[in-house]
Amino acid sequence: MKTDEAFAATEELGDVAVTALLRLVAVPSVSTTSTNLEVAATAVAELAETCGFSVEQWCDSGAPVVFAHCPGPVGTPTVLFYGHYDVQPPDPIDSWDSPPFTPTIRDGAVYGRGAADNKGQFLAHMIAVHALLKAGGCPLGVKLLIEGEEEVGSPHLAPTIRAHRDALSCNLVLTADGPLYDDRRPVIIFGVRGLLYLEIKADGADRDVHSGNRGGLAPSPAWGLVQALGRLRDPEGKILIPGFFDNVLPPTEAERAMLKELPFDRQAMLAELGISEFPPEAEPAGWEAVMFRPTLNICGLASGYTGPGLKTIVPHEAIAKVEVRLVPNQDPDSIEAALRRQLSRDQVTIVRLAAVPPSSTPTDTPWVAAVAAGLESASGAPPWLQPRLGGTTPDFVFTRLLRVPSLLIPYGPANMNHHAPNEKMSLAALRRGIRSSVAICLALADVETIPDPAAK
Amino acid sequence: MKTDEAFAATEELGDVAVTALLRLVAVPSVSTTSTNLEVAATAVAELAETCGFSVEQWCDSGAPVVFAHCPGPVGTPTVLFYGHYDVQPPDPIDSWDSPPFTPTIRDGAVYGRGAADNKGQFLAHMIAVHALLKAGGCPLGVKLLIEGEEEVGSPHLAPTIRAHRDALSCNLVLTADGPLYDDRRPVIIFGVRGLLYLEIKADGADRDVHSGNRGGLAPSPAWGLVQALGRLRDPEGKILIPGFFDNVLPPTEAERAMLKELPFDRQAMLAELGISEFPPEAEPAGWEAVMFRPTLNICGLASGYTGPGLKTIVPHEAIAKVEVRLVPNQDPDSIEAALRRQLSRDQVTIVRLAAVPPSSTPTDTPWVAAVAAGLESASGAPPWLQPRLGGTTPDFVFTRLLRVPSLLIPYGPANMNHHAPNEKMSLAALRRGIRSSVAICLALADVETIPDPAAK
Repeated sequence: MKTDEAFAATEELGDVAVTALLRLVAVPSVSTTSTNLEVAATAVAELAETCGFSVEQWCDSGAPVVFAHCPGPVGTPTVLFYGHYDVQPPDPIDSWDSPPFTPTIRDGAVYGRGAADNKGQFLAHMIAVHALLKAGGCPLGVKLLIEGEEEVGSPHLAPTIRAHRDALSCNLVLTADGPLYDDRRPVIIFGVRGLLYLEIKADGADRDVHSGNRGGLAPSPAWGLVQALGRLRDPEGKILIPGFFDNVLPPTEAERAMLKELPFDRQAMLAELGISEFPPEAEPAGWEAVMFRPTLNICGLASGYTGPGLKTIVPHEAIAKVEVRLVPNQDPDSIEAALRRQLSRDQVTIVRLAAVPPSSTPTDTPWVAAVAAGLESASGAPPWLQPRLGGTTPDFVFTRLLRVPSLLIPYGPANMNHHAPNEKMSLAALRRGIRSSVAICLALADVETIPDPAAK
Repeated sequence: MKTDEAFAATEELGDVAVTALLRLVAVPSVSTTSTNLEVAATAVAELAETCGFSVEQWCDSGAPVVFAHCPGPVGTPTVLFYGHYDVQPPDPIDSWDSPPFTPTIRDGAVYGRGAADNKGQFLAHMIAVHALLKAGGCPLGVKLLIEGEEEVGSPHLAPTIRAHRDALSCNLVLTADGPLYDDRRPVIIFGVRGLLYLEIKADGADRDVHSGNRGGLAPSPAWGLVQALGRLRDPEGKILIPGFFDNVLPPTEAERAMLKELPFDRQAMLAELGISEFPPEAEPAGWEAVMFRPTLNICGLASGYTGPGLKTIVPHEAIAKVEVRLVPNQDPDSIEAALRRQLSRDQVTIVRLAAVPPSSTPTDTPWVAAVAAGLESASGAPPWLQPRLGGTTPDFVFTRLLRVPSLLIPYGPANMNHHAPNEKMSLAALRRGIRSSVAICLALADVETIPDPAAK
């Protein structure tokens, strides 16, 4: 099959793709509150069938996993595309220009929670297979694995992967997720940071009490929490947990070379964040901070009265949502144990909400050239090679459990408002994503010798 | 007039009092959100007129102030009763057994926000005057000053007092507010702690950003806030602000003697708070911590995502509601300045939400004997003498601006759930309060020589 014919087929499916995206974004599938996950899974499964896949829903535990397969000719490789139909919570809702789950097309983009992360991106793979089938047949085996718990750390994905190891056999995993630098050049990413998410809670009296009548006698969990957190990080941003950095791998020579090539526009980044200088721990600023350094972040703080004006109470509890982004070879269990040791004298309870190990794929993986060629033919520019994603996907299930190489190839627009209000997927990015999946499939099918993943 | 006749008149007004309390509690007059304050003021004014007062509403600035006057015979003293019709916010609403603004009678008490603090208590004064008038006439001058901004620090009371100094002339101010030790013995309190309420805010990026893609580059206001707060108080509870304790007055001999007499049941207090030990800063535990030591309390913490489960963001702001309870002779302006100096290196903004100076009345004030006699004749037990209230009222406007002695005489039941869910006023406490105001008025009218307040 010629690439031109396949691209022509994608053009015919443009309206089908937009309609499908509107349908997906209209489902408020928020995994942190377990909302509408079955509804979204069924919508994904139906769309995959329409596109020509044979589809299963795996409901072993947690939210359903949609598995879809389109076999290729004998002797061709198999690529597995991973994605997720769950989305981040939409709050702060008031900051959206249109309601988050009423997908709205304006200025050439579909606005809505999940439009880019990740519904608009995994949809591109489905439509690509639809186009390939219309243009004469799928030139290689394509599998889809679309789960519903990525935004809460994929707690059930590893057992699901283990239970369906045979069905998931493949030569390469590709994930369209993560940010682009601009809307011109594609990106290939060789790994992700991991995630450890803990809730740290301090308790006081058994209810909020009057801060006048009892202030001085009632314990203050807010102070207890503040002081426990103060033992984790000093005012200059230095993380104080002993052993925190022990297993951190520095960039390899190849990764350093990639880092040097990547665009980092200091002024543009400051403007994007609306700040005038980077925090001290980010200096010397640049992608190395996001890709090769672990973070210890507070995602949320809550205690007592937080409304307008004042209420004079000693709160009965105080909670921090604390997140660690892990880099190879940090291990979530060891880091959690070290943090617990550091807070062993504090009157706090610590509950793990998520743990996802980091993941990386060797930069000399043989399939990279074909993926790069596909991306270039779809978008007219060679991809940036990026050593690692600052964000987290459950990539470790592919690299560590299935033991196959895994690459991320973001299709979202450069400013997709990831996890923020006014998330969007531009129609141009959707079209480019579909063409990219088509071209990658064609390029992978043309690889002459299938590398044995067990040899890696 | 004989006390017995006046008490008999209060019994006839029992149903009138309960009906009036239900009417007042049904108005959700939350001052922190400026809700229904005019409605509540009008209800208070109408009730005062029904009781026989001539009534004015002062609307100089802020919520209306209800002023009511019932003149006494020539040559008799004048007592001014102070109270407030505004209430604390009702949250957490889910913790109420009946809706906070649907007053409900059960187990011999009226449940609802404001039932005790302060609607059920100032109501007792009104009904008492109604009873005195029915029984033959008011034996002394009685003035009422019922304001609507006490729970937010009475920001407009001082200018109102200055503007109406002549109308407010009196010999003694009495406030029925604060907690009782038990339901047997009344209490006379000689002063209050003051209040300084600040909002401390740290800013980051101009919106919440993805903690994976930008974590490491975006500034963290939650960490900034935690670290600023850590500069105010050490892990052992010691306040680190230089000068914080400079003007703190130790108890006088007379105050120490009172403190010794006051009941402090260590086990009962631990049980009330649902804790097993007091925090270190409260030891050696006891009322001295609440009455003679300033506190630095966090009433609220808010940043980022605080819902169930997880959301992976770097929050764009973090806020702490910080409160200082001030003891004589601490000054809110100086303490705020000292706190600002201590945080001068931190990237935080500080906004004052309220400032109320502390207040005290000398323990040898001549009117005390009459007030004590009145309380004893109404409740059958002599009052505890308490040097200070842990909570705050704008008592300073009386002691410092009007320069008259001012005493607190709580009428609420011992466990009124002040500022908490399931606030209540027991019908027995309401009845006892009405009888107390009646008996105090009769005792004050019998004082032979009116002390000159200017001589104090």
